[in-house]
Amino acid sequence: MRQRNLSRVLHTVAGDGPLSRADVAARIGLTRAAVSTLVDELLRGGLLVERGPGRSGTVGRPGTQLLAADRGPSGVGAEIGVDHLAVCVMDLRGAVRVRAVHETRNQGSDPAAVLATLGGMLRRAAERADAAGLRPAGLTVAVPGLVVRDTATVLRAPNLGWHHTDLAGLLPTALGPVTVENEASLGALAELWSGGHGGESESFVHVSAQIGIGAAVVVDGELLRGAQGFAGELGHVPVRPEGRPCTCGGRGCLEAYAGEDAVLRAAGIEPGPGVRMGALTARCEAGEPVALRAVRQAGTALGIALSGAVNLLDPHRIVIGGSLARLAPWLLPPVGRELTRRTAVAAGGRETPVPVTPSPLGQDGPLLGAARSAVRAALDNPAALLGG
Amino acid sequence: MRQRNLSRVLHTVAGDGPLSRADVAARIGLTRAAVSTLVDELLRGGLLVERGPGRSGTVGRPGTQLLAADRGPSGVGAEIGVDHLAVCVMDLRGAVRVRAVHETRNQGSDPAAVLATLGGMLRRAAERADAAGLRPAGLTVAVPGLVVRDTATVLRAPNLGWHHTDLAGLLPTALGPVTVENEASLGALAELWSGGHGGESESFVHVSAQIGIGAAVVVDGELLRGAQGFAGELGHVPVRPEGRPCTCGGRGCLEAYAGEDAVLRAAGIEPGPGVRMGALTARCEAGEPVALRAVRQAGTALGIALSGAVNLLDPHRIVIGGSLARLAPWLLPPVGRELTRRTAVAAGGRETPVPVTPSPLGQDGPLLGAARSAVRAALDNPAALLGG
Repeated sequence: MRQRNLSRVLHTVAGDGPLSRADVAARIGLTRAAVSTLVDELLRGGLLVERGPGRSGTVGRPGTQLLAADRGPSGVGAEIGVDHLAVCVMDLRGAVRVRAVHETRNQGSDPAAVLATLGGMLRRAAERADAAGLRPAGLTVAVPGLVVRDTATVLRAPNLGWHHTDLAGLLPTALGPVTVENEASLGALAELWSGGHGGESESFVHVSAQIGIGAAVVVDGELLRGAQGFAGELGHVPVRPEGRPCTCGGRGCLEAYAGEDAVLRAAGIEPGPGVRMGALTARCEAGEPVALRAVRQAGTALGIALSGAVNLLDPHRIVIGGSLARLAPWLLPPVGRELTRRTAVAAGGRETPVPVTPSPLGQDGPLLGAARSAVRAALDNPAALLGG
Repeated sequence: MRQRNLSRVLHTVAGDGPLSRADVAARIGLTRAAVSTLVDELLRGGLLVERGPGRSGTVGRPGTQLLAADRGPSGVGAEIGVDHLAVCVMDLRGAVRVRAVHETRNQGSDPAAVLATLGGMLRRAAERADAAGLRPAGLTVAVPGLVVRDTATVLRAPNLGWHHTDLAGLLPTALGPVTVENEASLGALAELWSGGHGGESESFVHVSAQIGIGAAVVVDGELLRGAQGFAGELGHVPVRPEGRPCTCGGRGCLEAYAGEDAVLRAAGIEPGPGVRMGALTARCEAGEPVALRAVRQAGTALGIALSGAVNLLDPHRIVIGGSLARLAPWLLPPVGRELTRRTAVAAGGRETPVPVTPSPLGQDGPLLGAARSAVRAALDNPAALLGG
């Protein structure tokens, strides 16, 4: 119980600080005295720090504000992308303190080689973190593929060419507990945790794209993982049931119409390493009709798939992240048209369909979600942090 | 905390009894002594009863078994169907003790008149329950339409012709707290609570049909309600995006291909009051090719919509309830074919797609779910039962 209350105080100050002791007590429903005892332990352990309202050093006065420490424990995030690797170290306040990106080609790659490169990046990031007074308390890795629920096994990451790959033995153990997650799920969690909308009880569908189309569903503030951990495969929702064949063996999947390769080809751009949405975005900005039509068609397909999702899930909103977010000015109008046509029932009393917005995190969502996931796991377990 | 523990003991014994005190202690993780104190209070209040392992009257001996009382508090369920009204009274053990069905025509009806008839049925059911020593502790009403989350407002029930109808003032208050729910949601909850599958942490999509197609999504043992309470509108998932117009204003919705009216017409049966799935089932049993083809086409459309749902949600299974359950022998093969074609990614490592099974509750799901929902709400609040 005490550990749980320590964790609640930590989460509250880390998420909403600076806060006074009285603010914290009001938010978590404990007495001021109980909170003060917990806060004292967290201050002694270096997980919280105080900031006086006026001059510094006025410890314990009514106006003293609490903040999560910006030294000590930190969360490490890593992202395995199709064209890049990225790592970052986030402090308990949620600030990114170290970050590195390495452009590379991971399609058809050897998992051991990719993870050796990533391991080197993580080691260097940990050294830089150490120089800033931060020590890693956990690592979360974002992967563009199906990750078996509660394991480090990548069942299938077609854009990397990985199948049945257990990453557990290939990742460093020196950075604390390791978690492997689907990148779209982490992007959605980053969006959830960035707040600004309905907060913790929000329901939304988060769509992202690298080469394939990923998505994640958040219901009442919780990630919907699925029985095996494979929920969110919006890319394989049928939008033209007898239409184009898809790499999955099905027909008419959304990905065959709105995946990066499909959209680039429809725009007359041959997709290849490094040639991706940036090129298409430039053509749309230049007003090229073929590019604009390609994006419009992708938006229609996306709108059909999302109409199904909205009818099933009745979310508060839809968020477009990843490389699709950059196409929002041209993609969102046809998405909105399909939603208006096809979700009148789910819209119920509303005049307009569910809102669709580009993610403010853009392509950073999965990496930030990974790091913050590691930070949150650390905050869940203050005993480990205080003992460290 | 004491109330919460009383409730946990009650739920455990009601759900899994007969159980010994030691069984209960093991299941809820309290000491035997703590459980005995709670059990004594519930025995005194008449919410639990004891049954000796050998001769009766051996109160308190190690082998004594506890059961929920079959007298005293009970839950009342009611169902407003398109062609019928139904009520039932369920005791704390989950046994239906009183039940009545009234065949009628509720399409295009006046809500006040329908609820007056239902009120009479509820009054008579309560009298019969009273004669059996049962007193109603709550009422849940199943409605075939959109119910605004946490209200008694029916936003839209097209098969009844009801729009923006607040049932709160039209339902009796003498039976305890009143809850109004979508019938597909209650059918899904009945399926969940009937256990037998993955139990409380199960995820599934439950499809049912009256005239329209309803569905409900259960994730990790919780009903997914949606932001407004409108989740589960599988009937309006697009399956032929530029196909038949639907009553919702959209095109190519599942309901336009697999709703009762659509299937009956495709089978050459003019739908009308009382002419429903029974007629179609008879023709399928007789092997009539037109009827079989109509059901096969409906199954294909249902399979396309469910493929989308499986890709999004990764459920453990799909359950077919309501009048569709009777068509299972002819409906399920094409559903399975579409799932096999279209959910290879979501199936992940599995050899076969997600299982699809007819509900053993058939058309009784919504009524039983309503009554059990009322029982469970009563078990959540033992203070009210003990004070009554």
